[in-house]
Amino acid sequence: MSVHTDQRSIQMQGDSHIENITVHIRRVLEDSDLDAGIVTIFVKHTTASVLIIEDEPGLRADTKTVWDRLVPADPAWQHNTRNPGEDNGHSHLRGQLQGQSLTIPFVERQLTLGTWQEIVIIDFDTRSRQRDLIIQLIGE
Amino acid sequence: MSVHTDQRSIQMQGDSHIENITVHIRRVLEDSDLDAGIVTIFVKHTTASVLIIEDEPGLRADTKTVWDRLVPADPAWQHNTRNPGEDNGHSHLRGQLQGQSLTIPFVERQLTLGTWQEIVIIDFDTRSRQRDLIIQLIGE
Amino acid sequence: MSVHTDQRSIQMQGDSHIENITVHIRRVLEDSDLDAGIVTIFVKHTTASVLIIEDEPGLRADTKTVWDRLVPADPAWQHNTRNPGEDNGHSHLRGQLQGQSLTIPFVERQLTLGTWQEIVIIDFDTRSRQRDLIIQLIGE
Repeated sequence: MSVHTDQRSIQMQGDSHIENITVHIRRVLEDSDLDAGIVTIFVKHTTASVLIIEDEPGLRADTKTVWDRLVPADPAWQHNTRNPGEDNGHSHLRGQLQGQSLTIPFVERQLTLGTWQEIVIIDFDTRSRQRDLIIQLIGE
Repeated sequence: MSVHTDQRSIQMQGDSHIENITVHIRRVLEDSDLDAGIVTIFVKHTTASVLIIEDEPGLRADTKTVWDRLVPADPAWQHNTRNPGEDNGHSHLRGQLQGQSLTIPFVERQLTLGTWQEIVIIDFDTRSRQRDLIIQLIGE
Repeated sequence: MSVHTDQRSIQMQGDSHIENITVHIRRVLEDSDLDAGIVTIFVKHTTASVLIIEDEPGLRADTKTVWDRLVPADPAWQHNTRNPGEDNGHSHLRGQLQGQSLTIPFVERQLTLGTWQEIVIIDFDTRSRQRDLIIQLIGE
C-alpha cells in the first residue's frame, strides 16, 4: 500500500464554466504503480466543485440553468451586503452544496467509471480564476 | 493494509425508486478480513446516486416530492431538446447533485453508521434499469 | 500504511446551526504519526451534515436562508404526517442532500485545504442535540 499525490492548476472562467479532467486523472493513475485502491480529487476552493456528469453540451447548458434557478445570483446575499466588494454569495452557496471532494475506486489499473461518467470541475465564481486541485491515490 | 473490491448489480425502477443496500455492504465487510478502514460505495451511472437516509416510507415519498420540486422533469431541458429520443435531462441533473460516491469508515469490523442511518441507491432515470455498483474496502 | 480512528461529540443547536471543527481535525492529524493520506469525517446522524465553507457570518446566515428556500419546514412532509410526533421531515431531506461524509487529502502532515476552506458541521434538526462524529485517517 502506498500514497501518491499529484497537484494541478487549471484556468477556469466562472459562471458555471465546466472543464473535463478525466484524461488527467487517468494519466495520474497510469503513471503510478498502483493496481487497486481509490483516487480522491479535491478542489482547494470554496466557489468551485468536482462532480461526475455525462459531458455533452446540452447537460453543460442545463447545469448552468439549474444552478441559476436553485441559488440565484443576488446582491442581497449577506455575504455580499456584509463584505464590501463581494458579489459571489451565490457562488459560495452552490460550491458548498455541490462539494469539493470526490472519491473513485480503481481496479486493475483502471478507474471504475461507467460508460457515460466523466469527471469535471465546475467554477461557480463571478470571474476568471486559476483553480488548484489535489489528486491523491491510495492503494496497492 | 489491503484492498478488497466487490461488484454488484441491482434492478431499479427509475422515478426516484429507492433500494436499501445496507445489508449487502455489511456482508461485504464481514466477508473480508479487515478490522478498520473505509468502504467506498460507487455507482457506475450518471442518473442514479448513493446516499444515507432514515429509511421509512414517509421519507421515501418526501424524497421523490422534493426532487420533483427542485429539478422538475421538463421536455425543455437542453439534454432532451438537443439529443433526439432523450427525456431524462432532469435525471442527470439530480444524479450529479446527489452524487455517485459515498465513503464510510469502519472500526472493529463494523460500519460506523448511526442508529437511523441506512445506505440506499436512488434511481432518477425515467425507466427500469440494471445498476452496477462498486463496493471497495481499504483497511487493515 | 495504517488507520487511526478518533471519535468526537459536539453539542449543536439545530435550525441550520454551524460549528467549525477545522482545528479539531488538524489536531487529530498532528497527534498521528502519518505523513500523507486521507482523513474521512463522518457524521453518525441523518439530520446533520459535514461540508466545507468559507466561514464568515454572512455565509452562515445565507446558508440558513438558502435551505429555508430550497427545502422548507412544512408539517405536510409525509415523514411528519405518517409518524406521530415528528416535525423534522425537512431536516432529513436537507441532511441527505448535503451529505454525512467528507474526505480530504493530507500531505507533509498538513491538510490540503485552501486558504478560505473551513470544515464545518451543520445541524438541520428542529431541536438541540449532541452529535457524534468519526474522524478516520488512512495513510503512511
